[in-house]
Parts: sequence; structure tokens; C-alpha cells
Amino acid sequence: MRTRSLWPLPAFIAVSFLAAGLGSAATTSAITTWYPTINKPSWNPPNWVFAPVWTTLYLLMSIAAWRAWRAATTPAEATKTLWLYAAQLVLNALWSALFFTLHRPGLALIEIVLFLALLGAIQLRFARTDRLAAILWSPYVAWVSFATFLNGTIWWLNR
Amino acid sequence: MRTRSLWPLPAFIAVSFLAAGLGSAATTSAITTWYPTINKPSWNPPNWVFAPVWTTLYLLMSIAAWRAWRAATTPAEATKTLWLYAAQLVLNALWSALFFTLHRPGLALIEIVLFLALLGAIQLRFARTDRLAAILWSPYVAWVSFATFLNGTIWWLNR
Repeated sequence: MRTRSLWPLPAFIAVSFLAAGLGSAATTSAITTWYPTINKPSWNPPNWVFAPVWTTLYLLMSIAAWRAWRAATTPAEATKTLWLYAAQLVLNALWSALFFTLHRPGLALIEIVLFLALLGAIQLRFARTDRLAAILWSPYVAWVSFATFLNGTIWWLNR
Repeated sequence: MRTRSLWPLPAFIAVSFLAAGLGSAATTSAITTWYPTINKPSWNPPNWVFAPVWTTLYLLMSIAAWRAWRAATTPAEATKTLWLYAAQLVLNALWSALFFTLHRPGLALIEIVLFLALLGAIQLRFARTDRLAAILWSPYVAWVSFATFLNGTIWWLNR
């Protein structure tokens, strides 16, 4: 048992799922109205896949960020981890707003490329401070890589 | 794919983990200072067990409550589900405050018996509206039953 505090992990999870809730709110209406009407590739996953996948990813990313934050050796490093984590949560929810609320796959594609680059940079950073944090972060990077490819394909099919 | 909104599930999870964070904050200091010094039964679980168990339980209870809330047939019933869910989160965090922050196992024992009774009542309610909600709720009831027995034993060993 570490002597360090336990409460930050639930706090990370709570903040992550608040952001997840915003992203879902931005998605909810369009996913059953606009999204079924646009052109999509044959390998587009069924809608029911997204909720369990994202629930798992938000949980894993919270644990990863909490571990990396806890493993920071200076307060400045810990604060930077928090800012990067908050920034990627914002970019995540922003993507849902661009793609689903505003129906702008092209704009969303530009955004998701920047978002994915930030996720990669965060993973490299985590790998330096806590190896397990980087491992827990990788399903998130894998899924957003797939989402980037799907977004690009959808943009192309509906251009 | 249901046409209903996706965002309430992350909202349930966020609220649950905010409460979990309060409970952990109430526990953090005492679990490595006061708790190791009191008499405990041989079957007291090691401290590291609690964080993963509670993370899983908070996730399962959130999904259960979300399902039961969604399955409500009237707005009044849905609101009552929310109030009962909020009340049990408060009783959960309050137990940590009584036991760990205030070091009052006797008072905590009285509280956890009431808390467990509320959890049982909630489970019966869930069973009527959504069978899976009641199933997802049962590990929580099982763990708090065990915690009640552990609390009672610790109170007895330190009376």
C-alpha cells in the first residue's frame, strides 16, 4: 500500500466522464438522424459499438493519466500532465461537436489529425515517466487512429 | 441502436466517481496511519484490494442506475430513482467519513446497516424495472454486506 492519496483516481475518472458526457451530448441527436443518411464505408462499425468502447477508453485513459501525474518528479511536470490531459479531453469533445453537431466531416478531419498528434505526444511523455501509463494509453491512440481513418473516408465519400 | 440519448451514462459515471473521490479523500490519511494500528480479523483484505474493487463497483452501480433510470415508465419514477441513487452515494461517502476520518467504527456500523438496507431496497426496485440493472447492482450489495461484517468485527475487536 502506497502512502499516497487515493482520491485523485476517482477525480480523474469523474473529470473524464464529465467530458465524455459533453461529447455524448454533442453526438446523441445526430447519430440517429443525420449520421444514418450520409455515405459510410462498409466497415463502419454499428452504432452500439461506440458506447462500450468509449466507456472503456475513458476509464483506461483516466487510470493512465492518474499514474503519469502521480509519477511526475516535479510539481511543474505534474501540472503539465494535467494540462495536456485536459487539452486532449477538450479536443475529444470538440471533435464530436464538429462532426456530429455541426455535420462538418472536413473540419472534424483537420481537428482529429491535430488531436491524434497530441495523443501521440502525450503517450511519448507518459512512456518516459510511467511505462504502464503509456500501455494503458495505447488503446485510446489505436481507436482514435481508426476514427481518423473512418472520418477521412466519410469525408471523401460525402465530399 | 436506441434513439434515446447517450450522454446520461457518462453523467451517472461522473457523479458516482465524484462521490467516490469524496469517500477516498475521507479514507486516504487514516488507511495508512490509524487503520494499521487497530485490531483487525485475520481475514481483513490487504489495503491494495479496495481501490480496484471500488473502481469496479462504482462503474457497475453507475450502469445499473442509468439503466433503471432509463427504464422508468413515468418522470416521477425516474426522479425517485435519481434521488435514491444520490442518497446511497451520500451514505457511502458518509461511512468513510465516520469510520476513517472520525475513527468511529461503532457509529459507522450503525450507519452501514442503514446504508445496506437502502441498497437492498434499491435492488428490489431495480428488479421491478430492469432485470439487468438488479444484476449489475448485486456485486455492490455483496461487497457492502461483507464490509458490514468486517466493520462489526473490527468494532467488536476494538470495543
